[in-house]
Amino acid sequence: MFKLIKKDGNARRGEFHTVHGVIQTPVFMNVGTAAAIKGGLDAFDLKEIGCQVELSNTYHLHLRPGDEVVKALGGLHKFMNWDRPILTDSGGFQVFSLAKLRKIKEEGVYFSSHIDGRRIFMGPEESMQIQSNLASTIAMAFDECVENPCEKDYAKASSEMTVRWLKRCKAEMQRLNALEDTINPHQMLFAINQGSTYPDLRIENMKQIAELDLDGYAIGGLAVGEPSEVMYSIIEAVEPYAPVNKPRYLMGVGTPENIIEAVYRGVDFFDCVMPSRNARHGTLFTSNGIVNINNAKYERDDTPLDPKCSCHTCRNFSKGYLRHLFKANEILALRLAVIHNLYFYNKLLADIRNAIDNNKFDEFRRENIEKLSQRI
Amino acid sequence: MFKLIKKDGNARRGEFHTVHGVIQTPVFMNVGTAAAIKGGLDAFDLKEIGCQVELSNTYHLHLRPGDEVVKALGGLHKFMNWDRPILTDSGGFQVFSLAKLRKIKEEGVYFSSHIDGRRIFMGPEESMQIQSNLASTIAMAFDECVENPCEKDYAKASSEMTVRWLKRCKAEMQRLNALEDTINPHQMLFAINQGSTYPDLRIENMKQIAELDLDGYAIGGLAVGEPSEVMYSIIEAVEPYAPVNKPRYLMGVGTPENIIEAVYRGVDFFDCVMPSRNARHGTLFTSNGIVNINNAKYERDDTPLDPKCSCHTCRNFSKGYLRHLFKANEILALRLAVIHNLYFYNKLLADIRNAIDNNKFDEFRRENIEKLSQRI
Repeated sequence: MFKLIKKDGNARRGEFHTVHGVIQTPVFMNVGTAAAIKGGLDAFDLKEIGCQVELSNTYHLHLRPGDEVVKALGGLHKFMNWDRPILTDSGGFQVFSLAKLRKIKEEGVYFSSHIDGRRIFMGPEESMQIQSNLASTIAMAFDECVENPCEKDYAKASSEMTVRWLKRCKAEMQRLNALEDTINPHQMLFAINQGSTYPDLRIENMKQIAELDLDGYAIGGLAVGEPSEVMYSIIEAVEPYAPVNKPRYLMGVGTPENIIEAVYRGVDFFDCVMPSRNARHGTLFTSNGIVNINNAKYERDDTPLDPKCSCHTCRNFSKGYLRHLFKANEILALRLAVIHNLYFYNKLLADIRNAIDNNKFDEFRRENIEKLSQRI
Repeated sequence: MFKLIKKDGNARRGEFHTVHGVIQTPVFMNVGTAAAIKGGLDAFDLKEIGCQVELSNTYHLHLRPGDEVVKALGGLHKFMNWDRPILTDSGGFQVFSLAKLRKIKEEGVYFSSHIDGRRIFMGPEESMQIQSNLASTIAMAFDECVENPCEKDYAKASSEMTVRWLKRCKAEMQRLNALEDTINPHQMLFAINQGSTYPDLRIENMKQIAELDLDGYAIGGLAVGEPSEVMYSIIEAVEPYAPVNKPRYLMGVGTPENIIEAVYRGVDFFDCVMPSRNARHGTLFTSNGIVNINNAKYERDDTPLDPKCSCHTCRNFSKGYLRHLFKANEILALRLAVIHNLYFYNKLLADIRNAIDNNKFDEFRRENIEKLSQRI
């Protein structure tokens, strides 16, 4: 259940109540693709860095270790020892970005595993069954995720099929939640808005899925190559048609700037691999801008990466030590960098929530949007 | 200062007092080659797993980031944020195992870096200067580490040169400790016994280095290919000639069985990369024997790796989850496995100390020596 606490302009402060606890929004979800965070972080580390929601990938877990295995081990929460909310994506995005030899039909998608080439079929029902086995807090609807740019005819047909798939997802999730051996009978389902970069298709699609009364509404198929301005204009177009009393989730986004601009336009949920991926290459976010820790100027620097940051890395280690770990190819480099970048993102969202609480979001946006994006 | 508290047969319980705190012996030192533990563990993790002494490598740190850089950043303790004892090896072993195009002369060794081919000279004085810059608690003497088997003539000439080198090390360390800008003016120096597998050479060498009154005595050049029985017989040969009131350190050893057998013969200090290296391949030590976590039989196993173990990994995760992390190539697999294996080693030594304290070391040896080595 979503409770809208406060608005500051179009920016929203909310609480999303789940069977695994309350999520304070706006929120950034931390990506643990295969039930582990890249860089060697476990569920205890996630708590340390202030993570509210962990996100795992249906496609990856279906392939390895298999959702039946996760179910046999008690579901994702028990599997990874995490007691807060988990969101699972539907597998759709990975089927369209990772899998090979795809055939898209009305019933679903036939594809080959990117790991061992095995032929697999996944449709709306299968995606729900897998996510029910994983027993996440929030499941995502199975959608077709088209690439941008995309022909309008194709985008229209695809977004219409995604609505038909959504209806099947909803029915299947209701059936699964009622089964006796279901681990999480309160599993929620979010719809996904599609329609490529065409505002009229996006609006028509949002109107149709809003009627179906899901637990939340995602905007999918953005941040896949189009300019940020196009993404912002799509959010502006569909936002008025998204139910006010349901959370809005912008999938796979993004930079600190993207997040601030999307919150400004009424978005509540975010996820992105960028902070952890950038961390693994030594690109680190700080309150003054973006640092490349591989830079020679940090060799003898005994100050922390970000003196204002309270993460484990910044409290305990110098830039000189971090740079050394990267140069020496130590796994500890990845771990300390990922801890920092994810802490930074969770803290950014906490600061955003605080700014909205105090009617200072405009000020926050003005002060931070350029500063956080500059390379220093 | 070493205080021999108690003996149980030839097994010794001692306390080694250093400027960075007291080391309870027998002790296993945890290897952090480049000032980080392989598998992504930092100094805080080392405390969690009960590590008393961290061991770093002079050769690696001289090459990268450079000991001058570590000195500029306040020495190894500050660099890696570890306030307990650190032992640095002399660089000798790596010069003879990793470096290329070696030329050994009376003055020292000319070699090429294994990283960038750069020509480097290291002799006794240089090794002490590097270790003084690193500011470890205990420095090791620079020695020639011959391969086994080795011609007796060569072994004799080499071990005699190592004694001459030891004298130069001692004089240089005294000079460095007296300098004004030395970070650790109380840096200690351990001698290294050499002589290949020839008991008479080993004994003659030990007699000569014992006279030089160092802070501790290592047995080097073992566990490099010879059978365990040969190693045990060498320990038995030299032990009567090692000063009673100084710690004895068996370098680079070994399996739980090796350690128990060496403690039984009067050894106090150990180090080995095996527990962390094995961990990274999924070979895990438990109180019932050795587990290969990649085994398919653990796929749906929801029990901990070792129910008797109190490490982070065993307290919180199942064998099924660990196996999944290895199969999915997650860095978290390495981290959780290394945490467990190093905890196991530190706990093994704590159990050994406890057994000696209670005059039960013989019983402990009998009960554990085969059990810990069996594959289950």
